Amino acid sequence: MASLRLSSLAARGVVASAVSRPSPVAVRGFSTSLTRRQNDPATSADSKKPTFAIASRLKDGRALALDVWSVFNAANLPQDCINLGQGYMNFPPPVWARDAAEEALRSVEGNHYAPAKGRLRLRKAIKQFYGTQFGKELDPETEIVVTSGANEGQYAAFTAFIEPGDEVIIFEPFFDQYLPSIAFHGGKCVYVPLHPSSEPAPNVKIGKQSWTIDFDELRRAVTPKTKMIVLNTPHNPVGKVFTRAELEGIAKIAEEHNLIVMSDEVYESLVFDGLEHVRIATLPGMWERTITVGSAGKLFAATGWRVGWLVGPPSLIGPTTAATTRIVFCSNTPMQEAAAAGLEQARERGFFEQQLAEYEERRGVLIDAFEKLELEYAWPEGSYFILLDISKVRWPKNYTFPATIEGRGRDFKASWFIANEIGVSSIPVSEFYCEEHVAIGENYARFAFCKDLDTLRRAGERLQRLREYLV
Amino acid sequence: MASLRLSSLAARGVVASAVSRPSPVAVRGFSTSLTRRQNDPATSADSKKPTFAIASRLKDGRALALDVWSVFNAANLPQDCINLGQGYMNFPPPVWARDAAEEALRSVEGNHYAPAKGRLRLRKAIKQFYGTQFGKELDPETEIVVTSGANEGQYAAFTAFIEPGDEVIIFEPFFDQYLPSIAFHGGKCVYVPLHPSSEPAPNVKIGKQSWTIDFDELRRAVTPKTKMIVLNTPHNPVGKVFTRAELEGIAKIAEEHNLIVMSDEVYESLVFDGLEHVRIATLPGMWERTITVGSAGKLFAATGWRVGWLVGPPSLIGPTTAATTRIVFCSNTPMQEAAAAGLEQARERGFFEQQLAEYEERRGVLIDAFEKLELEYAWPEGSYFILLDISKVRWPKNYTFPATIEGRGRDFKASWFIANEIGVSSIPVSEFYCEEHVAIGENYARFAFCKDLDTLRRAGERLQRLREYLV
Repeated sequence: MASLRLSSLAARGVVASAVSRPSPVAVRGFSTSLTRRQNDPATSADSKKPTFAIASRLKDGRALALDVWSVFNAANLPQDCINLGQGYMNFPPPVWARDAAEEALRSVEGNHYAPAKGRLRLRKAIKQFYGTQFGKELDPETEIVVTSGANEGQYAAFTAFIEPGDEVIIFEPFFDQYLPSIAFHGGKCVYVPLHPSSEPAPNVKIGKQSWTIDFDELRRAVTPKTKMIVLNTPHNPVGKVFTRAELEGIAKIAEEHNLIVMSDEVYESLVFDGLEHVRIATLPGMWERTITVGSAGKLFAATGWRVGWLVGPPSLIGPTTAATTRIVFCSNTPMQEAAAAGLEQARERGFFEQQLAEYEERRGVLIDAFEKLELEYAWPEGSYFILLDISKVRWPKNYTFPATIEGRGRDFKASWFIANEIGVSSIPVSEFYCEEHVAIGENYARFAFCKDLDTLRRAGERLQRLREYLV
Repeated sequence: MASLRLSSLAARGVVASAVSRPSPVAVRGFSTSLTRRQNDPATSADSKKPTFAIASRLKDGRALALDVWSVFNAANLPQDCINLGQGYMNFPPPVWARDAAEEALRSVEGNHYAPAKGRLRLRKAIKQFYGTQFGKELDPETEIVVTSGANEGQYAAFTAFIEPGDEVIIFEPFFDQYLPSIAFHGGKCVYVPLHPSSEPAPNVKIGKQSWTIDFDELRRAVTPKTKMIVLNTPHNPVGKVFTRAELEGIAKIAEEHNLIVMSDEVYESLVFDGLEHVRIATLPGMWERTITVGSAGKLFAATGWRVGWLVGPPSLIGPTTAATTRIVFCSNTPMQEAAAAGLEQARERGFFEQQLAEYEERRGVLIDAFEKLELEYAWPEGSYFILLDISKVRWPKNYTFPATIEGRGRDFKASWFIANEIGVSSIPVSEFYCEEHVAIGENYARFAFCKDLDTLRRAGERLQRLREYLV
C-alpha cells in the first residue's frame, strides 16, 4: 500500500517523490536543474533535453519542496478517509451571495475586467463592513484594494514593501504561505515562536493549553533591518485570538521601530466564547502603519472564489495596488459581485451570528472526541482549527511509511498513521515552523472543523480507536 | 474642462497627478516616500504620519507611474465617449460556457479551492484543445498549469526562472505588463523593435503597413545573460501574426543560446485572412524550451473570468506551478468550470469560426473608417487591435491638456484630443515602448475592435470628423 501511494505521489509529477527531511532551504525535487548551471551540458539520460536554471527564490521560499498539502492530499489517502486536513468547507456559501454571481454572469460587464483595485460595489461593501471601526470611514478609492484571495493580497504587499535583505517577523507556527511570499522578494523571515503552555487560555480560562508570546523574545527579534511584523488573529493553526494587551504590546514595538504591521484577520468572523476580535489597526497610532487583511472565502465559506482584500492608509494601499495590478491585473468579476452581496446582506440576515453558532457546535464535536481520548489540545478561541497533541501516539514498530513521510518529523508519521489506520486526515504542524523550531511543531496535528456536523461526528467516533495506540 | 478632469484623476488617489515625462525608471507619484529613507523624520505637513520605503522593484517596473490605462480610463473621459481603448468586449461570453459556472456555483465543490495546478476537468479540456499539435498529447498532470489569467501565469513563469540580472528579450511595441513582470524579479528587459514598413504585410500583401523583425538586431540583443525571449503572436498592439519563417529564425537563436521562449498566444483564435497561427513550440526542438500561453478570457470574450494557462514541458511547467501556488495558491473555481465547458464545446459548436467571422466584420468597419480618412494604419492580421498612424493629426495650438498628458509623448496628446473632441477613445502606443524607442510609438494610437458592430460604426462615423484636424 505504502509504495502504491508513493507511486501515486510521484505520478503527480510536479515534484520528485523520494526525499529526505530537508534543511530549511534545501530542495526536494528539481535538484538536478538547480545544481546544474545554465548552458552546461545536460547530464540526464536524454542528453538532448535543454535545462534551465530555476530562480533561487523558489529554493529560498521552500517552494520546490513537496509541500504538506500535496503529501496529505485526498488523492494520496484512502478513499474513505475523512478529510479534516485542508481547511475548506464541505458546505456551500449562502445562496443569496451566490445569486449575485449568477446575476453578474448574465450581464456583459459582469464577465469582463474589474478595475485593478476592485469593483466599486465591492469596495463600497467593504467600507460598510468595517464601518467606523478605524475611527473613520474607509475611502474606497485609496484605502481598499480587492485582491485574488487574501493570499495574493499579502503577496502583493510584500512585493510593494520588501526589499532584499529586509526582515519580516512572523509568529510560529505560521500559515505556510508567508514564508515563500516573503522569501520570493528576498525578505528574511525572523521567527518568534508562540509557546504552548499548560495553563488554560488567558482569555477563556478553559481548555487544556494556551499559546503565549514572550515579549522579550519579540523585542530581541527586531533589528535595524526589520520592516514588518505579520500578525494572524484569530490564528491559524493555533486557534489563538490575540488579546488587546498582547496587541498593544506588539503595537508598541511596531511604533518604536517604525514597522509595518500586516494583520491577517481572515478568520475574524470565527471568534468563540464571547471573546473580542481586536483589530490592531484600531489601536492608537496604528492605522497609519497597518495593512488589515480580509477574505470573502473565509467569511462566506467560499474558498474557491479567490476574493480577498486589504485595507489601510493610502501610503500602504497605493503601492500594494500598484503591485497587485502587475501581478494579476485584476480579480475575477463575478465572484467580486458575490462577495459584495455577501457583505451587503450578512449583518441584516444575521449570517455571521448563525455561522458562528454553527461553528461552535462543530468545534464542540471535535473537542468532545479529544476529551474522551484524554489528549491535550490547544483550545481554539477562534478560526476553525484545533491542534491536537499527538506526542503520545505510538504506531506499530514495523509500520511502513512512504518515502515522502520517512524523512520528515514524527508529526508527519503520526498524521499519516492516523489518516491511514484511523481514517481521519489532519495536517502535521512542523510544516508551520522553521527548521530550528521544528521540535515544537512535531508534537501537533491540525484538525479542521469547517465540515458539517455529521462528518465531524463520524470523525470523532473513528478517532476513539486511537486509544489503542496511545502510551 | 481639462482641469476638472485632472482633479478627477487626482481624486483616484492611487498616484499623484502632476507629472512630467519620466525617464524609464522614474517615478510618477510616491516620490516623497521613495526618496525618503525609512525611519527618517517625515517632511509632510502631518509630521506624525509614518513613512515606509517602497521596494525599488516597483520603481524599476514603472509600476508607480500613472499608467496609460488610468489616464485613458472611461471615468476620465467624456461620458458619451466611445471606448475603443482598453481591450475588453461589450458583448458577453457564450451562454453555454457561462452555464457551467452557474452549475458550479450551485454545488459545494464548485465554490471551494481548486487544485493549485487547476481543476482536472479544465486541464483535460486544455489537453483536448491542443490535441497532438505538439507532436504528442499533453500530460494534464505535468505539462499544464491553470493560472489567474494569462497575465499571472506569465508573471509566475518569470518568478520561477528570472534571477536578478537575467536578461529577457521582448519585441517592441510590447504588452505593457511584460516590463513590470520582468523588472519585479530583477530581470532586465532588452528591447528589439518591430519596424513599421511602408510595404504591405508580408503574409497578406494588402494593407498599408507591416511590421518586421531585423534579425541582426535580434542576434545583437542576445548576451550571455539572456535567459528568455518573450514572443506575442498574434501581436498586441501591432496585430502582426508572425510567419513560420520568422518563428524559425527566432527558434534558431533560442536553440543556439539555450533560451526559454515564452510564447504569448492569447489572441490565437483571432487570426484573419486565412493566415496560419504557428505555435513556436511545434517547431523542431522547440517543445522542450517553450512555455505556450493561453487565455479563456480572450478565447471566449470573458476578460473578467481571470482564467488562463501555460503549457510546456515539465521542466518549465513544474517550477512555474510551484511559483503560482505561492502567488495566488489557486485560481477561482467557478470560472475554471466555465472555461472547461467553453473548450469542451467550442469546436463542435463552430464557435471559433463564427467568432472569427464576426471579428473580421468588426475589423472591416474600423478599416473602412481609416481608409476614408486616408490615414496609414498597420494591417491587423490578428488580435483585435489596429494601430492608426496619428502623426498627421494636429490639434488647435491653444488646446489645453491636463497635466497627466502635458508631459507625455505626442501620441498621448493626440489620443486625448481624439477622445475628447471626436468622442472615440484609444490608447497611445508610446506606453508600449522603452524610453529610447518612444519616438516610434509616438506616431500611433491603438484602437480596439472587440466591440459590437453598432458601436464600431458609430465610432467610424465620428472619426470622419478628424479630417478637419489632419495636415
